[in-house]
Order: sequence, then C-alpha cells, then structure tokens
Amino acid sequence: MTVDATYPVEPWCLRETSLNLDVLAQSESLFALSNGHIGLRGNLDEGEPHGAPGTYLNSFFEIRPLPYAEAGFGYPEEGQTLVDVTNGKILRLMVDDEPFDVRYGELQHHERTLDFRAGTLTRSVRWRSPAGRLIDVTSTRLVSLAQRGVAAIEYVVEAVDEFTRVTIQSELVANEDQPETSEDPRAAALLERPLEPVSHDCDGGRAVLIHRTRQSELSMAAAMDHDVDVPGRVETHTECWDDLARTTVICGLRPGQKLRVVKYLAYGWSSLRSRPALHDQVAGALTGARYTSWQGLLDAQRAYLDNFWDNADVEVEGDPEIQQAVRFGLFHVLQASARAERRAIPGKGLTGTGYDGHAFWDTEGFVLPVLTYTHPHAAADALRWRATTLDLARARAAELDLAGASFPWRTIRGQECSAYWPAGTAAWHVNADIAVAFERYRVVTGDQSLEEDCGLEVLIETARLWVSLGHHDRHGRWHLDGVTGPDEYTAVVRDNVFTNLMAADNLRIAAAACGRHSERARALGVTTEETAAWRDAADAVHVPIDEGLGVHQQCEGFTTLREWDFDDNTSYPLLLHEPYVRLYPAQVIKQADLVLAMHWQSHAFTPEQKARNVDYYEPRMVRDSSLSASTQAVLCAEVGHLELAHDYAYEAALIDLRNLHDNTRDGLHMASLAGAWTALVAGFGGMRDDDGVLELDPHLPEQITRLRFRIRWRGLRVTVDANHGDVVYGLTPCDGSDGARLTIRHAGADLDLSSDEPTTVRLQERTPSLPEPKQPAGRRPQRRLR
Amino acid sequence: MTVDATYPVEPWCLRETSLNLDVLAQSESLFALSNGHIGLRGNLDEGEPHGAPGTYLNSFFEIRPLPYAEAGFGYPEEGQTLVDVTNGKILRLMVDDEPFDVRYGELQHHERTLDFRAGTLTRSVRWRSPAGRLIDVTSTRLVSLAQRGVAAIEYVVEAVDEFTRVTIQSELVANEDQPETSEDPRAAALLERPLEPVSHDCDGGRAVLIHRTRQSELSMAAAMDHDVDVPGRVETHTECWDDLARTTVICGLRPGQKLRVVKYLAYGWSSLRSRPALHDQVAGALTGARYTSWQGLLDAQRAYLDNFWDNADVEVEGDPEIQQAVRFGLFHVLQASARAERRAIPGKGLTGTGYDGHAFWDTEGFVLPVLTYTHPHAAADALRWRATTLDLARARAAELDLAGASFPWRTIRGQECSAYWPAGTAAWHVNADIAVAFERYRVVTGDQSLEEDCGLEVLIETARLWVSLGHHDRHGRWHLDGVTGPDEYTAVVRDNVFTNLMAADNLRIAAAACGRHSERARALGVTTEETAAWRDAADAVHVPIDEGLGVHQQCEGFTTLREWDFDDNTSYPLLLHEPYVRLYPAQVIKQADLVLAMHWQSHAFTPEQKARNVDYYEPRMVRDSSLSASTQAVLCAEVGHLELAHDYAYEAALIDLRNLHDNTRDGLHMASLAGAWTALVAGFGGMRDDDGVLELDPHLPEQITRLRFRIRWRGLRVTVDANHGDVVYGLTPCDGSDGARLTIRHAGADLDLSSDEPTTVRLQERTPSLPEPKQPAGRRPQRRLR
Repeated sequence: MTVDATYPVEPWCLRETSLNLDVLAQSESLFALSNGHIGLRGNLDEGEPHGAPGTYLNSFFEIRPLPYAEAGFGYPEEGQTLVDVTNGKILRLMVDDEPFDVRYGELQHHERTLDFRAGTLTRSVRWRSPAGRLIDVTSTRLVSLAQRGVAAIEYVVEAVDEFTRVTIQSELVANEDQPETSEDPRAAALLERPLEPVSHDCDGGRAVLIHRTRQSELSMAAAMDHDVDVPGRVETHTECWDDLARTTVICGLRPGQKLRVVKYLAYGWSSLRSRPALHDQVAGALTGARYTSWQGLLDAQRAYLDNFWDNADVEVEGDPEIQQAVRFGLFHVLQASARAERRAIPGKGLTGTGYDGHAFWDTEGFVLPVLTYTHPHAAADALRWRATTLDLARARAAELDLAGASFPWRTIRGQECSAYWPAGTAAWHVNADIAVAFERYRVVTGDQSLEEDCGLEVLIETARLWVSLGHHDRHGRWHLDGVTGPDEYTAVVRDNVFTNLMAADNLRIAAAACGRHSERARALGVTTEETAAWRDAADAVHVPIDEGLGVHQQCEGFTTLREWDFDDNTSYPLLLHEPYVRLYPAQVIKQADLVLAMHWQSHAFTPEQKARNVDYYEPRMVRDSSLSASTQAVLCAEVGHLELAHDYAYEAALIDLRNLHDNTRDGLHMASLAGAWTALVAGFGGMRDDDGVLELDPHLPEQITRLRFRIRWRGLRVTVDANHGDVVYGLTPCDGSDGARLTIRHAGADLDLSSDEPTTVRLQERTPSLPEPKQPAGRRPQRRLR
Repeated sequence: MTVDATYPVEPWCLRETSLNLDVLAQSESLFALSNGHIGLRGNLDEGEPHGAPGTYLNSFFEIRPLPYAEAGFGYPEEGQTLVDVTNGKILRLMVDDEPFDVRYGELQHHERTLDFRAGTLTRSVRWRSPAGRLIDVTSTRLVSLAQRGVAAIEYVVEAVDEFTRVTIQSELVANEDQPETSEDPRAAALLERPLEPVSHDCDGGRAVLIHRTRQSELSMAAAMDHDVDVPGRVETHTECWDDLARTTVICGLRPGQKLRVVKYLAYGWSSLRSRPALHDQVAGALTGARYTSWQGLLDAQRAYLDNFWDNADVEVEGDPEIQQAVRFGLFHVLQASARAERRAIPGKGLTGTGYDGHAFWDTEGFVLPVLTYTHPHAAADALRWRATTLDLARARAAELDLAGASFPWRTIRGQECSAYWPAGTAAWHVNADIAVAFERYRVVTGDQSLEEDCGLEVLIETARLWVSLGHHDRHGRWHLDGVTGPDEYTAVVRDNVFTNLMAADNLRIAAAACGRHSERARALGVTTEETAAWRDAADAVHVPIDEGLGVHQQCEGFTTLREWDFDDNTSYPLLLHEPYVRLYPAQVIKQADLVLAMHWQSHAFTPEQKARNVDYYEPRMVRDSSLSASTQAVLCAEVGHLELAHDYAYEAALIDLRNLHDNTRDGLHMASLAGAWTALVAGFGGMRDDDGVLELDPHLPEQITRLRFRIRWRGLRVTVDANHGDVVYGLTPCDGSDGARLTIRHAGADLDLSSDEPTTVRLQERTPSLPEPKQPAGRRPQRRLR
C-alpha cells in the first residue's frame, strides 16, 4: 500500500493532510514519539478510534510461557512481552454534550505534523459536531529528550462560530483493551489486563497511578498534572480509581475564545524500588516539568535536536523522497535510543509491539553503526546495556555446554526468548555482531573507557564461546558447524562465511584487546596460550569457495544446493507460504548474508570477488527481511550498479513511509531506517571502517546530484560533500581547536585532510565489471530512475 | 533397574512371583494383553493400585492442539492422542465387608503368568484380609485372537478357612482418572475426561456403555455379560449410569467353596456407524463370546498361537534369557498386529500411551520384516492401512509443495502429528521404508495381490516425492539435501547415505513395479519418461565417502564434524541433557544410521567397507534410541564381532524385561522386541533379502550352542538349524505337497535346497578383520560372556 498522497514530500517533517482510518495503525507507528525511555504511539488524543493503543516504557515487560508441542533441552520456557502501560495521552473532549469523535460529525480539516527539528507531533483539526457546533482543536505532543521521565501535551480548543460549552477529560488509563494479536490463548489471557493496581491518588489537577505486573514483578508509576488557561469561568476537578485517573475541565467559549490545557506526564518503573520511592520519582519529574514549563520543554527539545542534526544530518539533492525518508529514519533512530540509557533498543523501538518488543542483532548490526558516527553516547549506552546482561549470557552458554557467553537472539531483559532454535540460538553470529560493535565504537570514537569498563569482558567471553563452538579438522582448517547466518532461509549449516569471518574478527579483536589490557585480562583468566589459540583459530577459519563458479559459497555446499523455482513460488514473504523443510535446502536467500559479509568484512574480499558474488547472489535473494535492502544498496554501489543501489536505498529508507513490508502497523523497522543512512553513507559515500581506518569513496547515482554528510571520527567532524564530479572533504575538531589533521583512505589510497582547508578530489567514473544482475521475478526493487 | 529376581527365566512364559508396587506400571506394560484391536494393560483386576490404567482400541484417539511459541508454515496444528477407553477389566471384590486391596491385609501368595502359548494372563493370589479372612483368588484374562471384538476374564474366589461372604462388583468404567503425564495444560485438560456419554443400558448381567470423543468425533461401545457359578444362594444385579455399569454378585462361601464369574467383554468403535449399529455390534460380539464359552475362547486362543509358533518360533540353546525374551517379543509383536486389520501398529502396540500411541517408521522398518516372514497376513494388513492413508499423504506433499505423497512421521489416523520438523517431516526416509516394506512383502511371500491392490500406487507416489525432493548437481550427481536420517542427533543434512540408498531403492522398485503393471501405471499417469527419470536419479545417487579415512560418511561431511566429548557428557539419554544445537554438528550418533543402511541396503557395501564402517561408527553411537541395538547386533555379527553382537542382541531382546530404557512403564518397545528376532535371524542366521533372493550365513557366538528358526519364503517353510559346526537347512512346502526346491545363497554362494531331504553345510569360522570396536564410555552393552 502506498500512502504518497497522504504524506507530502517535505524535507524536515512528516505531514498528514487527511485522516484515513484504514491506515490508522500504520500512522500511529509513523507518528510515534519516544525518547528511548518512554514511547507513545501516535494515537489520537481522544483515544479512539485507534489501530492499537500504545504507551511503552523501555524494558517494562511481562513474562509469558513459551509452549512447545515437542520440547527440547535448552529451549527457553519463558518469553518476555512489552506491556502497554498506563495511557496518559488521552484528552477526551465534549462539545456541548457530544463527544468529539472523528467518526461522527464532519471533519472539515485534519493535519498532523511530525517535526524532525522541533521533536513534536502537532495536530490541527476543524470539526463540526453532529449538532452543528464548529470547533478548532490544536494539540502538540512531545516526549522530552531533555527530561527522560517526562512527556507533555498542549491541547487548545477554540469555538469558531457560536458559544460552545466544552469539557475536557484528561485521563490516565491503565489496562486498555488491546486488539487481539496473539494466537496463543494463554498469552492473550495473561496480557489482557497485565497491570495489577498498587495505588492511586489525586489532588488538585494532579494524579498518580501505580501498578505492577504479575509475573515479571515490575512496578510502574504514571502521573499527570495540568495547567489550564481560559478566559472566563472554568471548573476543574480530579478523580481517580484503580485503573483510571481523570481531570475534568469545563468552561464556556464564545467564538474566538480558546481553552488551553497543558498536560504534563511523568513515568517511571523499577524492579527494585518501593512504592513510595516510585511515587516520589514521578512526582518529582512532574514538578520538574511544570517548573520548566511547556515552552521550556519545547525549547530544550529543539536544542537537543539542533545539536543532533548538526552532527548527523545527511543532505540528498535530487531525490526529495529519500531526503525526507533519511531524516525521518534518523529522527526515529534517535528517538529509539537517545535516553534508552542501558536498556535495550528494540527492533521496533518503542513504536509498537511487533516482535514482542524484543531487541535482536539489529541493534548492534544496523542501529549502532549509525549512532556511533552521529550520536556516540547513545551507542555507548546500548553497548553498556549488553554488557549488563553478560552474566545471563554466561549462564546461557553454560546451559548449552559452552564456554564464555552466549547472548540471546531475542530478548528484552537479557534472557533468551527465542522459541525456535534453528533461527535463534544457532544464529551465534549475534555474539560477534556485539563484539564488532564494541570495537567499532572504540576505533571510531577513540574512547577507550567503554572497553575498559565492560567491553573487554564481553570480548573475552564471546571469543571463548567461539573457540568452544568451533573445531579444527584434520587438515588444520577451523570450522563452525550447525550455525545459522543472517539468511533465515538457509539454517543450521556448515561454515557460513558471514559467521566465520565475524567470529574470526571477534577472536582477533579480543586478542588485541587483551594485549591492550593485559593485567585486567589476566585477572579474567586469560593466558597467552588462550589468546594464541584465538588467533590461530581466526587465521585457520575456513571460507568456502566454489572454484568452478568462482564465487564464495554462502555456506559449505550452498552453490550446489537445489535451485529454487522462483517462477513457481511468487507469494511473498515465502515463509508464510513454504515450509522451512523446503526453503533450507534450496538456493533461496531471505536476506543479505554473504553480501552482508562483503560489507562488514569488506577487506576479506577482492573487488573481483565482490563483483562476482553480487552477480551470483542477487538473483537468489528475495528480501523477505527488512534487514536486506540497505546492505544490497551498499554492495551494489561498490561494484558499480549505482542505479540498482539507488533503488535499494529507496526501499530501505521508505520501508515504513510506504509500508513496503505491510506491517508498519506493528511498529517501525529501526534497522532499515538506520540502513537508509548506511545506504547513503556506506553505499554512495563508500564509507568503510573494518580495516581500522576511515575509508571513503563517493559515487552517486544519476538522480542524486549532491550528497552531503558529516560523521564523527575521534574528536573530529569529517564532512563529505560529493557530486558527480568531485568530492570535498572537510575536517573540524569537535572541541573547536584548529590545526587538526587526519589521514583517510580515499578510493583505496591515503589522503591527508586538514582542518585548515577543505580537500577536493576529482572522482573517477565507476563502471561495473559485470552487467546489472536480475532479481527473482516480482522481487526487483521499485525503480527510481531508469 | 533389573527385575531378574521378579521374573524367573522360563522358555514359554513370563512369570511374576511377588508383587513390587514400585514397578507396577512397568509390569502393567509387560503383562498387557492385546489382539491388535483391543489392548488391556496388565492392571490388577480390582483396578487399584495402578501405575496407569489402560484400555485401548486401535486408532481410537482424541485430537489435541499442537502449540508453537513460534509457528511456521506447514506445521501441523492438531495432534492425535490414544484415549484410555471404558475399562472393562475391573472386578472388585469385597471379603465380608472389606475390599480386597493388596495394599492392606496380608498378601501371602502372588503370582502372575503371561503364557505365550495359551495367550492368557493368569493371576493367583492368597490374601488375608485385615479382619483375618483368608481367600484364594485366581483370575485368567484373555483378549481373543479369534474373536476380534472380544475379551474375557474368568475370576474365581475361594474361601480358605472359614465361612466368608464375598461380593464381586464387575464394572465398566469410563473416564478413569489418569496420572498426570503431559506438561501442556491444554492437552491435559482436553484428555482429562475424553469420553462424552452417549447412552447406557443394562439388563440382567449385561450392560452397554456408549461414548464419543469431543474433537475427533469417534464413537465407541463397551459391553459386558457374565456367567456366574457358585454352590448355594447367589444374588446378581446390574445397574448403569453415564460412565459406569456395575454387575454385583453376592454369595456366602464355606471353606473350599468357590465363586466363579466369567466376564465377557465386547468392544467396538466407529467414526461412521450410528449408535444403534454400534450397540448391536457389541451386543452381537458378546452373544458370540458366550456362545463360544470361556473354554471355547481358551481353545481358540491356543489354536491360533500354536499355528503362530509353528511358523515363527526361534529356538536358542545356551542362552535361556534370550530364549525367553525372543518369545516374549514375538508374542507381543503378534499381539500388536494380529487383528489390527488396516489400522496402524503403534510404536508401543496397545500396551501404553507412550508417544501418544503413534505409529512411526518402526512399523515398516522393524516390525513388518518379522511379520512378513512369520505371520504375513498381518504384514499385509498393516501395509493396506498405510495405503488407506495415501490421500492424506498426497495432501501433505501438496502442502509442502512436493509431488507424490509424503507419509507422516508420526500418526494414528494418517495425518502428520509431528510438531518438530527437523526430526519429523525432514525424516523423509519413512516413505522409502514403506516402499521397501511393500517390496519385501512381494518378494518374500510371492503374493502379487497387495501390489496390485494398493502397493503400486504407493510406490509411484513415493517415487514422485523423491524426484521432487532431490536434484542433480552440475556434475550429474543426484542429491537429497536438508534431510534427517534415522540418527536424530544429526539432522537436516546433505546426502544422508541411508536416506539416499533407500530413496534410490524406492525409485528402482517403483520403476520395476510400473513395468509389471504397465497398464495400471499408465492410468496413474506414469510415462516411460517418468520411470526413466526415476532410474536415472537412483543410478546417480550420491554416496559420500571419506577417502582419507576409507569410510562412508553418514552424511556429507560427517567425518569432519567436531568430535563429541563422550568423557565430558555421560548423562544419557543425551537429548535430556544437551541441546540439539550442540548435538547436531558433532560426531555423536543416537542410533544406527549408516550402520542400518549396511543392513537394509546390504548389497551397496563391500565386506571391507562394512568392517571399516562398523569400526568407525561403533565408538560414536550412544544408543539413545531403542531402534539401535538390534541393528548393531546384525552388523557386528556380519563383520565377525560375534560376542559384541550377542551383547547387542541381548539388549534388544531384554529392553523391556529389564527396563533398559527406563520407560517400559509407558509401553513396550515393539521395534526392539521385533529386533530381537532380527538380531538372531539376520545377525546370527545371516539372513538378508535386499538382493531379491534368500541369503543365509549362520555364525553363532560362543554361548549360543544352537539356533533354530523357521521362515516362510514363497509358499515354503525354510528351517535353519545351526550350531558352531554346521547348519542344516530344511524345506517344507506350506501346502503339504512335496518335491519342492529352492535356491538360496549360503555364505555368498548358491545352494540348492530340496524338500526331499535336509541339506547340511559345514560352517567356516568367522574371524573379524579388525579388532572389536569400543563404545562411548558407559555405553558398552552389558556383556553376556567374555
């Protein structure tokens, strides 16, 4: 479904100019606000109609049983599900005696705007009630990036053409009815009313509701307070019960008169703190918010975002849709991570309950690279979260009879929640993805403290995992058997190239880190024999190649598997139409896997190999995962298929704005949104960092006339400003000093940059060595320009 | 746990001389009676104490949901579970006013005897009640092999030393309480009271209860009638309710006087027939049983068994334990199959609810070979059952996007009920096992009618399945990828040798059958192009060999997988202590796989290969499946490790009598019990049939001084009588004619047998070419003699 008509192409906002109830759930995801701690879906102020109500607190989950008709040793018995917590977004409006509801009366004007620089969602409505009263409503909502526990809403009602009595009911609602999503009746039963009331109190326009979950035993508090501003008489009173607090504001408005209510919200949760402590926490946050005032919150929001965009913006000339989409994506990636602060960054951020609110390898693999270059402290926070789960990962490894630590495939809190091991536990690569993310952070930021504080231990324990998983054959080659790489249509295989190269990298990174921190490594039991074994395994890692075809094998034997009949199977995603028992042993690929290895382990492949591999794998990839298009963009750009790369970049960037996977209603695809940045910066900018130096090599597709981006590299800001003819590199020390220098690698050769003046380099035309590859029938990405 | 002391070694019966309540559930399985249609666990007459009450009707099941925490396309949503039906075994006894219960009073004498020639379970008890009354109780129970719907019990009570008032309550009880077995609360809830009452009626000493299942909508009827014989006054009356019918018999006995009650039971079930039809069916069966009389039932039972033993007996001199056990096994295999009549033969027969009462490849692979040689009409019946499920198998293949038919891994009625596809659907070999069983039946019996009636279609559809599953690589080799062979610790692999050879056999058998029935094959759409493709694939099948080690690879790459650390993992079965994700990619084998291929596809291996393969695979096999020991016996015998073969034969034969897998309580292991015959006949007798001729080559281990067995081969009875020096072959036409001749292959050379006189051949000593292999630590079979 495309929604082009609904969302005009604009550079700095997402705007909806009419309300289409058929895509309401989708728009709720797109218009979600979050600071990484609190998440509010873009539900209408009055609560309904809705696609799915959604108010989330990062890592506030309930436990549910994972059922197995045939159980097996090591299968996790408990899952974790993000809970829809107390909804503080609700402001119901009575117009005379009729409730404002867009399904009734006449909606004469509707506009919602998500402003990427203001960090607000604004809604502007003109509505005529069934009885004929005409009103204007303007609401502005924010989840504060500056004050982690705070959200706020300014709600303004104006009588347009006659005297109108208006009543606003501003509420906190716990245990909202949810649309049915789970097919497991037990899960549904458990999560139907997930919040047990603990206490409620109210006083003046202020109310606090405290609840806790039954199984996970987490407590949460939600609080609200109000400023009311209206000419003339107004009455306000507040009541509360177990699951509801309500402040009612009633007044009469003459034409042109406005009632303005500012609703301040505060949220907090804890697994440890007492009810009084939690109560005081939200009361304090609320007081802080009122002290700051609505305007103060707006100002701080904009200041935070100004700083972010200053470091992160990507300018795309010639393709305004991608321009809008990459900013939309960066905005949401920031929202998902800014104040997550040692909590997970879920695959869908806090925009919906898709994937139960779980975090996957998406975080380290796709989201953190972007944050590392644009908002590094958020990357460090996310990595610190992983490190806090190290003991759980150690316990999981021990359960699986392995050394070191085995991080979960999917989780909220840190426990493995994957109920299907061939595409869960066997996807060991998540461990290397984490290790590589630590290393990237260190290399790119130059900040050694993260490694010292917690990274070293993660690197050591993941290295130990790999050594206990792998083995040398009698010819001395090192193998990883029974593993699943990124491609979930080819599972439990031998020597997945991606996994093998990432594991080898993990082993080398860990060995080098132990060299940097030898004392601490010794304290963790690491000997020189152990690090030598790590290096040996890494050096002996087997990388299967089909010599006859001259291509890498995604895994041992892949190129001799049965060819998939793409013409006979055209219903996508294939996993809903074909069994794994047929998909696994065929040459059909869900998502970039060998192709992803060529991005993340770029130095392990020659340019010729990359060209031939792209040529071989493109026709076998169906992109049934949202984690694929951005990587295909990067590699297609590298081997010279720039127009195809443009198509993939568009798909990655527009995945949610155009609902390309038909499930944006369940939440946004953070990895793909982050991937839009990657498609531009690593794809058309040619950025690589897997050799420890900053490599750049821009080449633009025809339609994009200019690409300008900035990245942070060890206390420096590097700006890249490319057009079809040349690229201008700029260098600015972040601390404002001058005289900085940096040697980067441009197009494979060293290039010295100086903060004294920009460096301009003439670009060579990039021509592919092979013709543009074809995709499976019906899976060609939408063409941008041809 | 060994139970040697409890069960004395006797050639023709299993006797228990004391009652051990700790192993009650196990004894209920061992003493189970069945005719393949009705199954009665060996519960005590008075109903309790019990390990698990059990009354079963073949294929009478309830449907239960199969839950998945992460579902996938093609996963079956409904399982089938054998139902404990109306219990007609119960005869409660009141001694004066105290109930006879072995847990109270004093059990002065207890003996139960399962008589393999009489086909009865006899119990003899002397009990002193807590109040001091001494009684003798003798009961004899049978499930009629002659009258399919009938069981009967003769129950005799004698007052020993003073006048005693005795009351017998003979009952039909539906919806008995079950011990908790399932961890899935929904399954348990559903099966707690599985039978909905339909009707009940009684009249005189006769009663009929009719029930039906809720989901599977099967109806069943149970009926009882009684003969009562006692000197003096007796009162009898019968009452009935929804779930209970009770005939009460009350009388007084002077010392030496006996009350004798004969209880006749009739059972029937149907998915189609009306309540009145079902009612009349059991009433008719009951009338037939009374007309035959108790003595008539006993006589018919013995006559049936005399005929069976005449064709099937195996005599083992020198090892009385195996002698007893092989007859125990043959008796139970007969009980599981005799009157199954186009219903499945479950893995545990009708002796318990283990594996939900499902049938697996065990039937065609392990049970039917024995029946084909000893009781062929039961083998034909079982194969006809498979053929009746062909349409379901076709539908399953279509669901999986495959041609032909895909038979279920586990089922009662024919639908796939496996909830874990890597050890279910991926174990495609079940299809070839079925095809080969059809072919064996044809070759051994000479009966072409089964193939004509239904076998041809099965052969064609399984051949089509294989062709759609496999593919040729660019070098022309034919592969089967993503398959699971018999070894469930190595799953979803490439080119499992067992599967590949069996599939190739399936293809060749199908092509040959189409040649024999060309008109009918054409009608089924088979062309000469299609059969040519079958032969081509079979001829091109890839059989991976590790040239360096000089052994076959169980599957591609197997010999280069990680070696399993057997010293570090000594808790068995491994599947309860190690995750699949670790087991699959290691050289640890649950059960004979490549070794099984060397038995069933014997001609595909040279003697040298067999010796080397046994040497390689023995140290890697842990026998966590009961399907392994018998096959290891066969191959160890072939390569000359006769003493080791003897150990394995013992393990296969004694699996339940010695509770070697610690789960006999859930039912007997039919395949292993059948395997005891196979270990003796194919192991020490050297019998093979996979080349279309009867091959024999006896060699005995030291302790077994003489082995004598008879098999049926195309209307002839071949007797084999071997000792350590020579073998005497006898030939008798089954129709009593004379002048018969048969060319067999003895020790690889043709040998002509004649019905005129026995043929005596001097045996050569068999010496192994390699030393006896070792097994994993702690997994060496118990040694017989060394």
